[in-house]
Amino acid sequence: METKNIKKIGVLTSGGDAPGMNAAIRAAVRAGFYYGLEMYGIYRGYEGMIQNDIKKLDSKNITHVLERGGTFLKSARSEEFRTPEGRKKAYENLKSHGIDALVVIGGDGSLTGAHLFYQEYGIPAVGLPGTIDNDLSGTDLTIGFDTACNTAIEAIDKIRDTATSHDRLFFVEVMGRDAGFIAINAGVGSAAAAILIPERKTPIETLVEKLKTRTKAKKSSNIVIVAEGGKSGSAQEIADKVAKYLPYYDIKVTILGHLQRGGAPTCFDRLLASKLGVAAVEGLMQGKYDVMAGLINNKVVYTPIVKAIVGDKEIDEEDLRVANILST
Amino acid sequence: METKNIKKIGVLTSGGDAPGMNAAIRAAVRAGFYYGLEMYGIYRGYEGMIQNDIKKLDSKNITHVLERGGTFLKSARSEEFRTPEGRKKAYENLKSHGIDALVVIGGDGSLTGAHLFYQEYGIPAVGLPGTIDNDLSGTDLTIGFDTACNTAIEAIDKIRDTATSHDRLFFVEVMGRDAGFIAINAGVGSAAAAILIPERKTPIETLVEKLKTRTKAKKSSNIVIVAEGGKSGSAQEIADKVAKYLPYYDIKVTILGHLQRGGAPTCFDRLLASKLGVAAVEGLMQGKYDVMAGLINNKVVYTPIVKAIVGDKEIDEEDLRVANILST
Amino acid sequence: METKNIKKIGVLTSGGDAPGMNAAIRAAVRAGFYYGLEMYGIYRGYEGMIQNDIKKLDSKNITHVLERGGTFLKSARSEEFRTPEGRKKAYENLKSHGIDALVVIGGDGSLTGAHLFYQEYGIPAVGLPGTIDNDLSGTDLTIGFDTACNTAIEAIDKIRDTATSHDRLFFVEVMGRDAGFIAINAGVGSAAAAILIPERKTPIETLVEKLKTRTKAKKSSNIVIVAEGGKSGSAQEIADKVAKYLPYYDIKVTILGHLQRGGAPTCFDRLLASKLGVAAVEGLMQGKYDVMAGLINNKVVYTPIVKAIVGDKEIDEEDLRVANILST
Amino acid sequence: METKNIKKIGVLTSGGDAPGMNAAIRAAVRAGFYYGLEMYGIYRGYEGMIQNDIKKLDSKNITHVLERGGTFLKSARSEEFRTPEGRKKAYENLKSHGIDALVVIGGDGSLTGAHLFYQEYGIPAVGLPGTIDNDLSGTDLTIGFDTACNTAIEAIDKIRDTATSHDRLFFVEVMGRDAGFIAINAGVGSAAAAILIPERKTPIETLVEKLKTRTKAKKSSNIVIVAEGGKSGSAQEIADKVAKYLPYYDIKVTILGHLQRGGAPTCFDRLLASKLGVAAVEGLMQGKYDVMAGLINNKVVYTPIVKAIVGDKEIDEEDLRVANILST
Repeated sequence: METKNIKKIGVLTSGGDAPGMNAAIRAAVRAGFYYGLEMYGIYRGYEGMIQNDIKKLDSKNITHVLERGGTFLKSARSEEFRTPEGRKKAYENLKSHGIDALVVIGGDGSLTGAHLFYQEYGIPAVGLPGTIDNDLSGTDLTIGFDTACNTAIEAIDKIRDTATSHDRLFFVEVMGRDAGFIAINAGVGSAAAAILIPERKTPIETLVEKLKTRTKAKKSSNIVIVAEGGKSGSAQEIADKVAKYLPYYDIKVTILGHLQRGGAPTCFDRLLASKLGVAAVEGLMQGKYDVMAGLINNKVVYTPIVKAIVGDKEIDEEDLRVANILST
Repeated sequence: METKNIKKIGVLTSGGDAPGMNAAIRAAVRAGFYYGLEMYGIYRGYEGMIQNDIKKLDSKNITHVLERGGTFLKSARSEEFRTPEGRKKAYENLKSHGIDALVVIGGDGSLTGAHLFYQEYGIPAVGLPGTIDNDLSGTDLTIGFDTACNTAIEAIDKIRDTATSHDRLFFVEVMGRDAGFIAINAGVGSAAAAILIPERKTPIETLVEKLKTRTKAKKSSNIVIVAEGGKSGSAQEIADKVAKYLPYYDIKVTILGHLQRGGAPTCFDRLLASKLGVAAVEGLMQGKYDVMAGLINNKVVYTPIVKAIVGDKEIDEEDLRVANILST
Repeated sequence: METKNIKKIGVLTSGGDAPGMNAAIRAAVRAGFYYGLEMYGIYRGYEGMIQNDIKKLDSKNITHVLERGGTFLKSARSEEFRTPEGRKKAYENLKSHGIDALVVIGGDGSLTGAHLFYQEYGIPAVGLPGTIDNDLSGTDLTIGFDTACNTAIEAIDKIRDTATSHDRLFFVEVMGRDAGFIAINAGVGSAAAAILIPERKTPIETLVEKLKTRTKAKKSSNIVIVAEGGKSGSAQEIADKVAKYLPYYDIKVTILGHLQRGGAPTCFDRLLASKLGVAAVEGLMQGKYDVMAGLINNKVVYTPIVKAIVGDKEIDEEDLRVANILST
Repeated sequence: METKNIKKIGVLTSGGDAPGMNAAIRAAVRAGFYYGLEMYGIYRGYEGMIQNDIKKLDSKNITHVLERGGTFLKSARSEEFRTPEGRKKAYENLKSHGIDALVVIGGDGSLTGAHLFYQEYGIPAVGLPGTIDNDLSGTDLTIGFDTACNTAIEAIDKIRDTATSHDRLFFVEVMGRDAGFIAINAGVGSAAAAILIPERKTPIETLVEKLKTRTKAKKSSNIVIVAEGGKSGSAQEIADKVAKYLPYYDIKVTILGHLQRGGAPTCFDRLLASKLGVAAVEGLMQGKYDVMAGLINNKVVYTPIVKAIVGDKEIDEEDLRVANILST
């Protein structure tokens, strides 16, 4: 694979937004300036690429964005980019601006798009893992995950205040699509009575037994964390089932929802995004195409996109073991 | 009405908990100590009064509670206290401890209990308005309301990040039972496109028209605040109706839920609770019985409980007018 | 006084910035649009007026600023505006844009400038109280004060964690220039052992006596709040004096400093700023010139600027009384 | 080394407190209960060990402490424990309670004590790295560091609001004793213009040059992060030197101070503390004595205390490189 002489890089965010995306954009753009490149913002992801919503960025565009949630380049899902015609339009728009390469920040769908586009049109791309779900391989943690976990525990800390005052049982549903990473971290981080994740099946009877044991041990308020997308059902469904076994218990359900996607990124997410934003540009300059830049054991690692998106990232058994010890 | 020589005061929190209840308990207890009284904690509200869950408090009990959400005396709803037998038991327990008077912190139901108890058994009580809903007369603001409003806007700030990134329309449901106070403050405080409150009927067509006008004016993301308990339906129901008119719009719903009840109280709630806690004890010492202590125009005012609980507290028309100007 | 037909309003922020200034600018601009006026941003206060740093605003300029600290119009102190020549230049710049009237957001110095300018050139102005110090008459609270108090107590909550862990005595210096408002609120709100304000002289012996009494009562960690600008000296100076009396005590000093000026405004400050921003524009339209719009007992009140800036706003004796009861 | 049959474990926190210490105590105690052990709290570190301030813990002691800053076991520095007589007393107190082993949570001084005590009296101890400074080897990160970094950037975000509004240059001093870890993370995380750390000498001329270049590039507000304990002097001293070169610049200094030590721990610190608390007890049960449990590449690692405290933990050159690219 020949290393191209890259002069103009387009940056885009795509898929569900995540805190730290702005920090990643800023880092990529600033790194580009540092190396004398021209940097372009592609607004609203692949949709904007197709609609030619592309603007040259200067340093003002990236001032005071590091600390802000969301993405100032906006994000969107693009049906049209899934079609050959859509991608052709997108390619022509990039060419009209002279854009040589892409930095694509998003989840597995976004990275798949970058991979496909590279296969078809040879536009070099480095992907960055931007998703609160942490469900990408090739990086220990994804941009936005740490913030989402902290947002979750801050909300649960508040819920615990009222749970304790009333000796209630709360089921709190957190995000994570098909992955239990947020649930585990938020659960251990908030002293949850139990954590239900998509990767493990927890029979209702087991859950009820645990709650009964804890109630006997006078832990009179209890919080159960439920990852959305789990096979055991939504937090509401599980709560309804448990209610039949524990009719004397005052049970409430809270779905944290989209507030987990926003907010100023944590220090960790700012650092992660900053390092990976620089790594994206430096990767492109070094001929690393069709890869995702991630951080493994605190070192930048470039993983082929096709390997990063396979969705086989495993939860840490040790975390589950610790969670069990601490909630028993 | 003769002023009794009060020596032992029982303090309880009842009904839905609110941030600042701990600060109010602390202030009452500390004021009691200042005036040489004995102070008792009655745990779990009227239920604990019936079950004799009553303990003498010392200064350690109230150390480092000011800044904590919830209520360390816990709260509960008591069916038994609604019966003459329940109240008789409660009275006998108070007598067994020699408790002369009560400070009751809670909402309208809790204050009603204190009034009834005074009528039946002559136990002097001063009520304090402890509820996030702000639906009590006799005080400009209730303890916990300011914190709940801030919790709401902090959550909505996060939701706005993701709403803006995706140009989405969000319906955010806030608490308030039958009162729109939280909705109005959170709505004005978060630049909401519209605010739906129980006190006013907003036809779906009017709401849709407003959203269409704003979309034309390129305010592409929009947040609508919906107070729970409104006649127009829940946030989800309203969203479903609106979706039929605006099929092209990506619509999401978030129910903030119980996290609005918790969290460290704001500075204002700490001050309000501190002043009213002192006022409760001083009121009892001055023979002010069967009243609620509130703050009106920053002055302590004692209002007969029967007047405080009538539920006719009106929302400020001027607030609605300002909200309308700012969202047009 | 004749009411002019105002068509173009300039908005500026001046003096020390305060959280909520952006919300006030937004509200004024949006109210202007609502009434069909043209709105101009005058950047960097009077300095920008002299240097013609003036731009017509549209709705994009005020999108997503409500929730941000600082002021996007920036602020500055202007020596030149104190000279007749400077004001002449400023006037000519306003005329060149056709600006008929001003909304001036700031503290006493900023409002004095608006008054002087009205006297000399007849440019109608409504001032808004924008300062964390709360030292303006004509309003119960100034924009930014509530946020500064909350920022202070959140910082002090953190300091208390470490103070308690080590049984230390902390002196925490808060802002407020010559006014003790922040100190009192932050002090009551953080269970301070003592509060030293510029308006009252506290002899070191009295302070030491109180600390000794508390130590005997086993309140082993103590926090003393010191307002900057007090006659008893800075927090460090007072700490040094106290250290001589309590040599066994581990004493630390923290100066909260400029972080009290920043941060997202609280819900209250957003509401206050929103109401006053609207009131400023409506006041100008109704011929209310040379006044400051404030909120007294939750009603908008227009006070002649010369009366608002006299600096005789008194602290509430009742607050000091409550503070004393609660810290004894 | 023979593995003892441990039945009673004492837990203590020592040295400067750090957020997450409570979570570590809770995890150790709960793990102890899980394995059927008796757990004792030794209050005020080694000082309390000497004064026999030791209490058996039950599950109530560790309820709702996970999320709280500080350490409920309190901390202290003990001169007496540095003497053989002091350690003898401490040993006798432990024996009187039948305590077989220790979990010691703290920084290098605290771990040194545990090592010495093991050498002299054979009391098995596992140390946990509890310090915001991150200056211990044998673990990627110490308990409290992540929280301190987040506290720092949240404060700097606020300072940036006012810096930007006034185009000011701020010097912000952060903690870290002789280590620049907090400074680097907070600096990269807050888009600092420059970061001064103890490990590198930055000539004033270099700093001034960088600030001049940035000012030319219209980055008109600037924040410089200064680690306490650096050879170039305190933030105030550096600011004074810089002021001579940039007399036109409005320069301010803020020392964040002890608020960096407090506050609710972040999700990461709660997880780290939870895992290490369990690891401490399991280590003791497996005969791992005189070691510190740390987390390296997300795996628990036991390092001999003598190796953990050597103070040669190096800052990551890559972090500095990224910081430089992003601030140029």
